[in-house]
Amino acid sequence: MSKRKMFRKLLDLELAIKNFYEVYKAEPLGVEEIDLVEGIRRVLAEDIFSPINVPPFDKSIVDGYAVIAEDTYLAGETNPVKLKVIDRVRTGYSPRKVVTRGTAVEVDTGAMVPRGATAIVPVEHTEEEDGIVRIYKRVAHGANIMYSGTDIGYGELVLNKGRLLSFREIGVLSAIGFKKVKVYRKPKVAIFSIGDELVPPGEELGRAKIYDVNSNLLYSAVKENLGEPIFLGIAKDDADEVIAFIEKGLKEADLVLSSGSTSAGTSDIVYRVIEGFKGPGIIAHGLKLAPGKPTVISVLENKPYIGLPGNPTSALNVFQLIVAPLLWKLAGLKSPPQKIKLIGESPYRLSGDVGRMVIQGVKILKRGDDYHVYPIRSGSGAIRTLGDADGFVVIPPT
Amino acid sequence: MSKRKMFRKLLDLELAIKNFYEVYKAEPLGVEEIDLVEGIRRVLAEDIFSPINVPPFDKSIVDGYAVIAEDTYLAGETNPVKLKVIDRVRTGYSPRKVVTRGTAVEVDTGAMVPRGATAIVPVEHTEEEDGIVRIYKRVAHGANIMYSGTDIGYGELVLNKGRLLSFREIGVLSAIGFKKVKVYRKPKVAIFSIGDELVPPGEELGRAKIYDVNSNLLYSAVKENLGEPIFLGIAKDDADEVIAFIEKGLKEADLVLSSGSTSAGTSDIVYRVIEGFKGPGIIAHGLKLAPGKPTVISVLENKPYIGLPGNPTSALNVFQLIVAPLLWKLAGLKSPPQKIKLIGESPYRLSGDVGRMVIQGVKILKRGDDYHVYPIRSGSGAIRTLGDADGFVVIPPT
Repeated sequence: MSKRKMFRKLLDLELAIKNFYEVYKAEPLGVEEIDLVEGIRRVLAEDIFSPINVPPFDKSIVDGYAVIAEDTYLAGETNPVKLKVIDRVRTGYSPRKVVTRGTAVEVDTGAMVPRGATAIVPVEHTEEEDGIVRIYKRVAHGANIMYSGTDIGYGELVLNKGRLLSFREIGVLSAIGFKKVKVYRKPKVAIFSIGDELVPPGEELGRAKIYDVNSNLLYSAVKENLGEPIFLGIAKDDADEVIAFIEKGLKEADLVLSSGSTSAGTSDIVYRVIEGFKGPGIIAHGLKLAPGKPTVISVLENKPYIGLPGNPTSALNVFQLIVAPLLWKLAGLKSPPQKIKLIGESPYRLSGDVGRMVIQGVKILKRGDDYHVYPIRSGSGAIRTLGDADGFVVIPPT
Repeated sequence: MSKRKMFRKLLDLELAIKNFYEVYKAEPLGVEEIDLVEGIRRVLAEDIFSPINVPPFDKSIVDGYAVIAEDTYLAGETNPVKLKVIDRVRTGYSPRKVVTRGTAVEVDTGAMVPRGATAIVPVEHTEEEDGIVRIYKRVAHGANIMYSGTDIGYGELVLNKGRLLSFREIGVLSAIGFKKVKVYRKPKVAIFSIGDELVPPGEELGRAKIYDVNSNLLYSAVKENLGEPIFLGIAKDDADEVIAFIEKGLKEADLVLSSGSTSAGTSDIVYRVIEGFKGPGIIAHGLKLAPGKPTVISVLENKPYIGLPGNPTSALNVFQLIVAPLLWKLAGLKSPPQKIKLIGESPYRLSGDVGRMVIQGVKILKRGDDYHVYPIRSGSGAIRTLGDADGFVVIPPT
């Protein structure tokens, strides 16, 4: 008899995810108020209703002359109407005069429209001399005026809770006077690598050792996926040490991620380790996914603990399929980021596999309007794939 | 005669950009060394050659038994070959024994292959008992061994100068032992708004005033486009004040951006202001672009000074068409970020304009595999467009 611990039962990715969300309710973790300028890539935690009208007053959208529209109805290229210029309103200042029949007030773009005026004649259709403006083109009632509240009305719903903030939303929030904004707290993710073979980048690489790729990879990937990474270090392939790392992670973070030591080999311990924690416990050990099979999905002390494969390409694969969507939910994001789907031809056969989903890294080249897709030749051990892949092809089980 | 200063000559966008790069050479501004984990969204300032082989040694890619391949050639389901297990090699440790004919060494995934061995038999095709392993399936020479340097070879070019770093590149750099990395310095961008009407978000909005949208908008947009924003404040519509802001900006930053006061109206001063600085001077005042016409492009004291329109939608338009690509060059980026081009149908007419390029904000809805494109009804004054647009349609001059 072998003393090896085998995978109990490989699970379909979809089933594993379904089972996970049945025992773990992924919800935003809290709300904090931050300065708007720090808001990029944060998720809005409140529905935003406008506290003001935008624009806050009727404003001119051109440089020109505020008039009573009827005064211009007889104007033409060869028979200009003459109006007396009684005031000039600069942007940012209150008009002092009321426009009456036969008069006009010069206004700048963005200036408040003076009372009485019902339209603005653009400067291009005028000529001013000695306090008299000649109008060469008629304007309709309301022309070139943006009325108060027509862009955004007082009380109007402007942005929805759960929206990812980019510079565009930050612009909108500034326009309605927000200086601070309520966003969801970032999910804290404790990260560690497991393996006696791992050496931190920058240090001397001893015999039989390799550099720890996953700590930096996952740290950065968590950041890019709306989380706040906490790096715990490298754990030896030792049950007690791994238990201590998981305990620390569960205490400090909302989610614990390890990589390595999840296969069924003799020195692998994660599976046995997590049986000692309070549940709900293990959801999946082993996925029908290539690369990515040796994955542990569990919920310990009611927090997710996910053990990713040690191989970086596999780890990243599982991260993108399982961890990133989980982070988006915890971060409060309402709709997941749009995936870009390209349709292209591959001159090579992209081979699937019996009974498991294959994720194939590909280079994508554009020729005219067509995309050509080249699989990156590599074992699942390939670091190169990490750097070279422009995208991925998902090949369903055959 | 009108006392107004008119646009001298409207320029095509392409021509304005061409003229600009004829007098301003946009190049990376310097190099700095940073911790790799801080590398996300920074641009690589060196070609990276691998200082090691990856993997650094011949490693097993499965849990199994290191053997001499010839020893397994007669193995089959019903007639296993028996080999003596003389050692176990855990990942991260040096093998102590040499594999000879008739012997095997148990190895973990990632472990160093012991000398003598020429293939690894996966554990699934074996059974071990009392120090003897039965092999049920033959393996070819080299099977399940990843040879040293086959992923990345010593001295091999791994990543090119000018590459934007994401978590994937950070993984690759970790794998070859980098702890620090040389990146280009971020271009510093001084930002200010001009206008007597502007009030900082969060403060009380007086009569005829509006909130300053562009400061926060541009601050965030600069950040998202690889720059380091420096906010100078809001300048009054006053020549001396604007001159002081530009001077400060030219001193502290690599590029100066203002918004507002660029139209041809009476209170507009930017055009006159910049004539006082050393050149090369003004490249364009007024673009054949909607929204975005009232734009000033100049090079003062050999640094770009770009005056964007005061209207946020217009300002953002010009930012994305002119400033963002300039920032990418200054940041050292080799290839601009891929634009996503969608082809869809619009149930509404998208109107162009005679002699100028129109940029129309649109909502994009997906129905099955088709995209439907809806223009966002708005004047160029619309803040809503900022928040609602999923994309833009470029309509060439008619």
